[in-house]
Amino acid sequence: MKLNEIAKNLGLKCDSNIEITALNSLLDANENQLTFFENKKYLHDLAKTKAAAVFIREEFVKELPSNTIALVCEEPYLTLAYASKFFAPKIVEEEGSECVIGNNTKILPNVYLGKNSSIGSNCTIMSGVYIGDNVTIGDNVTIYANVSVYRDCKIGSDCIIHAGTVIGSDGFGFAHTKDGQYIKIYQNGNVIIGNRVEIGANTAIDRAVFKSTIIEDGVIIDNLVHIAHNCRIGHGSILVAQVGLSGSTILNEYVVMGGQSGTSGHLEIAPFTTIAARGGVTKSITTPKKQWAGFPLFEHKEWLKLQGKIARLLKK
Amino acid sequence: MKLNEIAKNLGLKCDSNIEITALNSLLDANENQLTFFENKKYLHDLAKTKAAAVFIREEFVKELPSNTIALVCEEPYLTLAYASKFFAPKIVEEEGSECVIGNNTKILPNVYLGKNSSIGSNCTIMSGVYIGDNVTIGDNVTIYANVSVYRDCKIGSDCIIHAGTVIGSDGFGFAHTKDGQYIKIYQNGNVIIGNRVEIGANTAIDRAVFKSTIIEDGVIIDNLVHIAHNCRIGHGSILVAQVGLSGSTILNEYVVMGGQSGTSGHLEIAPFTTIAARGGVTKSITTPKKQWAGFPLFEHKEWLKLQGKIARLLKK
Amino acid sequence: MKLNEIAKNLGLKCDSNIEITALNSLLDANENQLTFFENKKYLHDLAKTKAAAVFIREEFVKELPSNTIALVCEEPYLTLAYASKFFAPKIVEEEGSECVIGNNTKILPNVYLGKNSSIGSNCTIMSGVYIGDNVTIGDNVTIYANVSVYRDCKIGSDCIIHAGTVIGSDGFGFAHTKDGQYIKIYQNGNVIIGNRVEIGANTAIDRAVFKSTIIEDGVIIDNLVHIAHNCRIGHGSILVAQVGLSGSTILNEYVVMGGQSGTSGHLEIAPFTTIAARGGVTKSITTPKKQWAGFPLFEHKEWLKLQGKIARLLKK
Repeated sequence: MKLNEIAKNLGLKCDSNIEITALNSLLDANENQLTFFENKKYLHDLAKTKAAAVFIREEFVKELPSNTIALVCEEPYLTLAYASKFFAPKIVEEEGSECVIGNNTKILPNVYLGKNSSIGSNCTIMSGVYIGDNVTIGDNVTIYANVSVYRDCKIGSDCIIHAGTVIGSDGFGFAHTKDGQYIKIYQNGNVIIGNRVEIGANTAIDRAVFKSTIIEDGVIIDNLVHIAHNCRIGHGSILVAQVGLSGSTILNEYVVMGGQSGTSGHLEIAPFTTIAARGGVTKSITTPKKQWAGFPLFEHKEWLKLQGKIARLLKK
Repeated sequence: MKLNEIAKNLGLKCDSNIEITALNSLLDANENQLTFFENKKYLHDLAKTKAAAVFIREEFVKELPSNTIALVCEEPYLTLAYASKFFAPKIVEEEGSECVIGNNTKILPNVYLGKNSSIGSNCTIMSGVYIGDNVTIGDNVTIYANVSVYRDCKIGSDCIIHAGTVIGSDGFGFAHTKDGQYIKIYQNGNVIIGNRVEIGANTAIDRAVFKSTIIEDGVIIDNLVHIAHNCRIGHGSILVAQVGLSGSTILNEYVVMGGQSGTSGHLEIAPFTTIAARGGVTKSITTPKKQWAGFPLFEHKEWLKLQGKIARLLKK
Repeated sequence: MKLNEIAKNLGLKCDSNIEITALNSLLDANENQLTFFENKKYLHDLAKTKAAAVFIREEFVKELPSNTIALVCEEPYLTLAYASKFFAPKIVEEEGSECVIGNNTKILPNVYLGKNSSIGSNCTIMSGVYIGDNVTIGDNVTIYANVSVYRDCKIGSDCIIHAGTVIGSDGFGFAHTKDGQYIKIYQNGNVIIGNRVEIGANTAIDRAVFKSTIIEDGVIIDNLVHIAHNCRIGHGSILVAQVGLSGSTILNEYVVMGGQSGTSGHLEIAPFTTIAARGGVTKSITTPKKQWAGFPLFEHKEWLKLQGKIARLLKK
């Protein structure tokens, strides 16, 4: 879509007819992508952006790099939300090639296979599975009954996905208008799952708003886990049942999240960290190989000590 | 069903042949409905009931309004449970008209469409979706794969429902006999969802025991959320992933429930309240626009202060 | 499979050609089964084992009963993981008899019925349900849309299973190699559900690694509950929404687990125990009929007192 067309649709001014291929974040956008600047906290990212154009308030235009075009507006994030719809792919493709299916792959009845998708060799796809358009699945993958894989997602080889799990549902992203209406930010990214990943039953992994939610090789995920948009789960990490990860959480390799633990968004957890069951992580953890517990979070040893002291209150 | 027939089936005495159309609560029951009185706490509701009849213990009959018939029994709640079965609709209708489908609505393969249901215009219903009998769905609605919508539920326009979500499953309602058997209270209500509602993946919204579980316009619900029977979610409210609401919780407009937060049943939360992640609400919140956290719940500022004091215990 | 064949496949030495029918735990294995010994804590179980053979480290061979054969290896648990694959049944049977269906049982369209399975009389199986191979279902059972029942599971009579629930998914069992790869322990057990059990929507019940995960008669389970492998839920127990039970948790009869409560694994809870909402059980509870709350767990009265004292900290 041409930039001037986008601007016109949003009631903004812009002459440039550069072709915009996608929306993206300040730091990730390239010279054919459009981004937004809302929060002053990211001022020094703004200076570094390579985006073709940016939704921005008048007052910050002077901070823009010289080769990035300003699309001046009052509410950049809200404007982004409106623009995200222009880049949303079709919900269901009507045209395209039939799904390619590898040797010895067994597809049970009542499976939906989208357009332009492919499934490797030696896979089993059980009844009730939905494979959206433009999905790629590797070899030796078992997908149990009633799993839903949304369009554009990618699954590696040697994976097992248990029944009822959803991969690629929309991330939870909304802007709001001054009169309190929520405007959906279309989630135009996808989910990429590596090799040797096992995912339990009735888990939900949201697609990215831009780019990809990533589950790296060798990750193990239990039942009823929630993974929000744009998370990255480092290889060898383990997520026990009912864990909830907020948006853009990064787990480095071999992180263990105990049952019912969770994270706030936009934080990073160092390699080989263990979070005990119910632990609630609200800040990044930078030192590797430590064990944490509680909410608020303490080092596990400290948490045990603290619980001892709290229990002693009872006797006072 | 005639009242004397109901009484006879339950081994109770009653001569009236008034037609009873439904069960309902003390305050909501009308002159063709049957209710029950179990808990003294509701004595002044009993005085106000407009019900045709009430399951009631002998000792409280004198408190009844003159135009309400007493069905005297030893265990009114248990008796209600037995009676609820008489009013349960068929699990699956065999007769009725075919589902009406609006213009430009796309129904993918392997979708079940119940009798006497209707789907509006410009909708997409993906593979594996189950639409029960007597369901109404508005215009511009997208229902992703493997969603189940139970009979009698209503969904407005401009809604998005993500894969694997269940709407209208039975609420958790049981009476028990003296020897410890649970008797199901048939959940004969429904779920009503307004306009511009988005619901995430693998969420579960239970139907009401009587009347309706209500999700008002503009509500946004994330993945793996539990909404129990007879909740009412006020317009513009936001429920983040893994929230759990107990039965008959009322959220007024623009309430935000953070991830993994929850409520006890039968309480009401004032407009524009924010509950932080993991917050546990056990009493009604009557002052609007406040922020709360923790379990037990404190005002957010107080909770932060308290956590500071608790942390200081460690150093003692 | 012959024991010497198993040994050969794993690079171990063994002459015996005794037929091994299954893997099992130290105490449960019989004279045709193979077990493992990894943890010294179970030394006195080792002395009592009736297993045909055991994966064991050299140093403990002397502790073995005389009629049990040692399969000496460096990493018994890891070796068991490799061996578990030899005993995994087919993911989908291609041969076998068609599912037997009782009188007055209604099967809606788009249902998958596995080989050698049977469904009793007066059942309703809704659209999108997956019934794997060798599944047995009793009489008067209603299974709502998009439920998945994995192979070999058994469901009694008079049960209701709500939409989206998964029964028999793999338990979360993995050994790891020295270089950090996870090796799946194939979950070759099943789930057995008794009579008069009701299970809510989008719940997940894992199959046992050996033997059975058991849900006894009259149990009621709400929405979005996680029950890990090898749990046993005693009759009349109630699990409220979003409860999570870790592996091998035993609930005796009439235990009530409040919403969002959970347990660590390998523990037992006494009859008629009540765990309040959010309670976290980390040790066995041996005295019946008590009420508990909090995490760490306290007797409910004590927990309330403690919360009062904690709140008072704020005023200091």
